Formats: sequence, C-alpha cells, structure tokens
Amino acid sequence: MTIALIAHGGAGRWRPGSDEDAVEGLRRAVEAGRAILLAGGSSLDAVCATVVALEDDPIYNAGTGAVLNFDGFCELDASVMESDGARAGAVSGLQRVRNPVLVARKVMEETDHVMLTGDGAQRFARVMGFPDHDPVTPERRADWFDKRNRVDEVLGEKALRMRRFLREHPEYAGGTVGAAAVDSRGVLAAATSTGGVTLKMVGRVGDSPVPGAGNYASAHVAASATGTGEFVLRSLATRAISERVEAGAGLDVAVQAVLDRLGADYDADVGLIAVGRDGLTVARHRTRDMPHAFFRGESAVASRMRVGDR
Amino acid sequence: MTIALIAHGGAGRWRPGSDEDAVEGLRRAVEAGRAILLAGGSSLDAVCATVVALEDDPIYNAGTGAVLNFDGFCELDASVMESDGARAGAVSGLQRVRNPVLVARKVMEETDHVMLTGDGAQRFARVMGFPDHDPVTPERRADWFDKRNRVDEVLGEKALRMRRFLREHPEYAGGTVGAAAVDSRGVLAAATSTGGVTLKMVGRVGDSPVPGAGNYASAHVAASATGTGEFVLRSLATRAISERVEAGAGLDVAVQAVLDRLGADYDADVGLIAVGRDGLTVARHRTRDMPHAFFRGESAVASRMRVGDR
Repeated sequence: MTIALIAHGGAGRWRPGSDEDAVEGLRRAVEAGRAILLAGGSSLDAVCATVVALEDDPIYNAGTGAVLNFDGFCELDASVMESDGARAGAVSGLQRVRNPVLVARKVMEETDHVMLTGDGAQRFARVMGFPDHDPVTPERRADWFDKRNRVDEVLGEKALRMRRFLREHPEYAGGTVGAAAVDSRGVLAAATSTGGVTLKMVGRVGDSPVPGAGNYASAHVAASATGTGEFVLRSLATRAISERVEAGAGLDVAVQAVLDRLGADYDADVGLIAVGRDGLTVARHRTRDMPHAFFRGESAVASRMRVGDR
Repeated sequence: MTIALIAHGGAGRWRPGSDEDAVEGLRRAVEAGRAILLAGGSSLDAVCATVVALEDDPIYNAGTGAVLNFDGFCELDASVMESDGARAGAVSGLQRVRNPVLVARKVMEETDHVMLTGDGAQRFARVMGFPDHDPVTPERRADWFDKRNRVDEVLGEKALRMRRFLREHPEYAGGTVGAAAVDSRGVLAAATSTGGVTLKMVGRVGDSPVPGAGNYASAHVAASATGTGEFVLRSLATRAISERVEAGAGLDVAVQAVLDRLGADYDADVGLIAVGRDGLTVARHRTRDMPHAFFRGESAVASRMRVGDR
C-alpha cells in the first residue's frame, strides 16, 4: 500500500505575515506524521502526531492558541477516527488540556463511549493523566477584548446571531487543524482539533468532534473539514465524501462535489482535505486561504497556502 | 401529500407490567402529533409534541424519569431536524430542564449554532425562559443506588468498560424516545430525546443529539435511532438509511439493511424508526422490545411492543 498524509490549518483568511508561518507549521507537522508512516507506524499514530504538532503551535486555532468563546475562555473540541472497525473517539468543551486530540484518542481506546463533553471530559482527561494546561495565549486574549467590544457595539443584544458580523470581519475566521492518512496496511485515519469559532456561545459544539461531520474515516476515505462548522454538521460533509467515493467517484471529484454542494446550499466558508485508500490526497476550499501540506509514498512534503499555490 | 408519524419508546427489554403502559404512552404521544398534522400543522411541531409527551411520561428514559449517570445525576441529550434546509438543533448534558427537545429546537431557531452542551446549554435554556426542573424521579434514584452498588461489586475499578456488564443485565437498557413525521407540505422532521445509558460516564454524549446518528431528516426520509448509541454514532445509522433510500431502495429494505449491518459489524442492541416522503412508516429492532406507535393518512393510531405484535 502507498502511504500518504495530508493536513490543514483551517479555512479562512490569514493575516499577511502570519501566512508563511502557517504554511511552514503545516510542513513540519506533516513531517512528524510522515516519519511515523515511513517507519511502518499506523495512520492513527501519524495523524495524532501531526495534529499534536499543530495544537502546540499557537498560530492555529486548536490547543494552545485556540480562540476564546463569548465569555472569554477556551472550549476545545477534537476527534479521531480509524477505518479499521470504524472506531471513533471525541471530546468537546475541554478548557484546560494541552492536546485535546490525545484525550479524544483515549476516549476511543479506554472507554466504551465515543464522545465525552464538558466537565466530564475534563475530569476524564485528569484521570487519564493529562496535566493542567491553560490554552489561552496573551495574543488571543487581547484579540478577544478587541472583538468582544466591537460585537457589543454592532450587535447589542443580538449575540445569538453573529454569523453575518463574523463573516464581514474575515480576520475572525479559521485555524481549525486536521489530518488524514493511510498507512502501509491500508488503514485510514483522520484527526481534527479546534477551538471553534471566535465568540461562540458558551457550550457551542461544532463539527470537529462529530464523526461524519468534521472528521471521518471509512474503508474508502479519511477526511477532515474546516470552516463554518454548523454547515458541515448539517450536511455531514466528510461522510458525504466517503459516500461518493464508495459509489465510484474519484476522490477529487467527490471532494469538489461536496464542496460545491456546501456552496450551493449554504454559501458556506469551508474547506476539506481527504486521502483515499490508494494514497491520493485532495485539498479544496471555498475560503481565500487554507494552509495545507501533504506527501505520498516516497515524495517529499509539499505545502501550500491555498489550492493553486506553487 | 400523505401525512404520517411514527414514534418509539426505546429499544431494549421492558419489565412485565410496564410494557402495557409503554405502548399506551406511545399511542397517546402519537395522537398528540397526529392532531397537529391533521390540522395542517408542520412535521416539526408534530414530532416535538410527540416527544414532549414522552419526555413528560416518567416510564421512558427521557426528560422526567431519565436514567442517572455514574455519579447519580441526569445528563439529557436531544435533537430536532427538519428536511427543509437541513436545519438542525441539538443539546447535550442538560441537567435541569423538563423538555430537552424544546431547548434543541430553540438552538435551531434562535441561534447560529447547531449544538450546545453542558453548562452552556443549561444557561441558554434559562435565557430562553425554560424554568428549573429536576428530571430525577424517586424510582430512577432507587434504581441507581441498586445498580451502582452492583457495578462496584462486579467491576471494581473497571467502570470505563461496562458494556458487557450492562448487556448481561438487560433491565438496564432502553427508553430513549423519538419521532419522525411527514406533513402535508411534504416536509420531513425527526426529534429524539434521551437520558442516555444507565451509569454512563459523566459527560458521555450518545447518538441522540447528533445529526445523521440518532436523529436525521433529509428530503428522502426522517428517522430516529435507539439502543447502544456508540454503534449508531460510528455507523451514522439514520444517515445511512437516507443514503440507501436516495439510491433507490424501498424504505423497509433500507431500514432492515442498516439494522443488519449494525448486527453484522457490532452485534448492536439497537432499533430504528423511519418515515418516507410518501408517508410509509417502518420500525425495526434487534432488541426483544421496542414500543412504538404510528399512523398514516386517515388511519387510526396503531401501537405495538415489538415488530410482529398484533
């Protein structure tokens, strides 16, 4: 089997100056996963190593450096899934953990459950030995103060409905991270991690921890989504990619079709990455940017800010 | 269009004596939804009215009378979905609300989000005007004391892995409620509500609040699942029904095929109900019991304890 891995750093719009760092961070993260796959390791280990590297890099909206919710604290969502047995693990609403993706993996491996949320998820993380960690960076905190004040100015009492506001301020978007891989045994795996959307309501869960929405691995494809999670949830976008591949579509055609559907139905600001059983990788996005990196077989890691970039 | 509605009271095994009450409760709940559909109301209103009636009946594991988690309190999950625009709303981990399904509907109608969880979901419910309500009944509390003690005897420290234990004690199972309907405009809707699995880990989220897992409505089918939620989550069972119908399968064939797959892959204790765009209703389950009731068009409401019952 041909090994392959692809990872993204979130669909959205990156500030000039941070974009090169975003692409370079992706390249390094994919190198970490590639080393595991080249040594004969599992796709699950590879996507976890890639996502851990991205969670630990404060420029992405996941783990350390995640965006803050409306009340000014982090609620982190993450998930893993493996094609072998359709095993899945997910967490949502974690407040004080360094690597949510590893807690999601523990849910999959150590419990009879698939999803844990909020205080229960945090307690489980403690019991599993994950030490206390504050994911809030000074930069994100300053950013929150600024945006929170402007939201009040613009929206007043209408904080429940701020999609339009956020959309008109594209610097608010993006930064979810995810990875999808196939290993030498032909097992596919995906992992996704996020701080969610800036100024989200307390308790909001997006697509990232939901199998078939923000993260999915089947016998046909492993995929991760990014962007406005509500649309990905309602359309089950990563599952939809797998359905189309199972029905005979090529991977690139399947990903593009699902993206087009998200555009036609919702005009959604989203991006998708996927890897097929044959090691083909695909990245597509409707936003201006989606930093991503990938490799296949013997090839070196390539990285891009957007599809079409050299 | 032919109106129709079907509802279930949970796949599992009902104690002798409670089974007649379970069937009668379903019949009354479906009558409530039927009255709405006959008056030209929406499928969303109808499934909500049906699920509210079941949440308020303490014999089901949803709303008042929900089972308790490992620590001895309720965490309620619920969701609604409508085919028109694939709109969805969901809540998980609610502790003090009478009708979680109505909070899920408020998430769909009043916010830009799809899912709210834990403290944030509870707070949202308060802001939306839902009064304080303790869903724990004396019967469920007594039951919890009994089972909690027996789990400790049998499992000691192994509380993370108690699926086998629960399965060997079938009286622990079941009671999730759900409804699916099609209205005179041809719009499909589904609603599902649950207390989850007895002695679940704190923070555990099952399939019920997840679109495509425990609850789903597309242009082809509306469906609700019950049983061991982790398998329903991993297989995205209700979405799988819709996929098969979209590919041309009859509704009964599609539901049975998804159920068979859940059996082959996981030997899962699950049940499914579905309604098609043409008003056909189907109920199937792998457990001994799944109380359900249904009607179509001009017909009266029929109710059953299990498929095949007169």
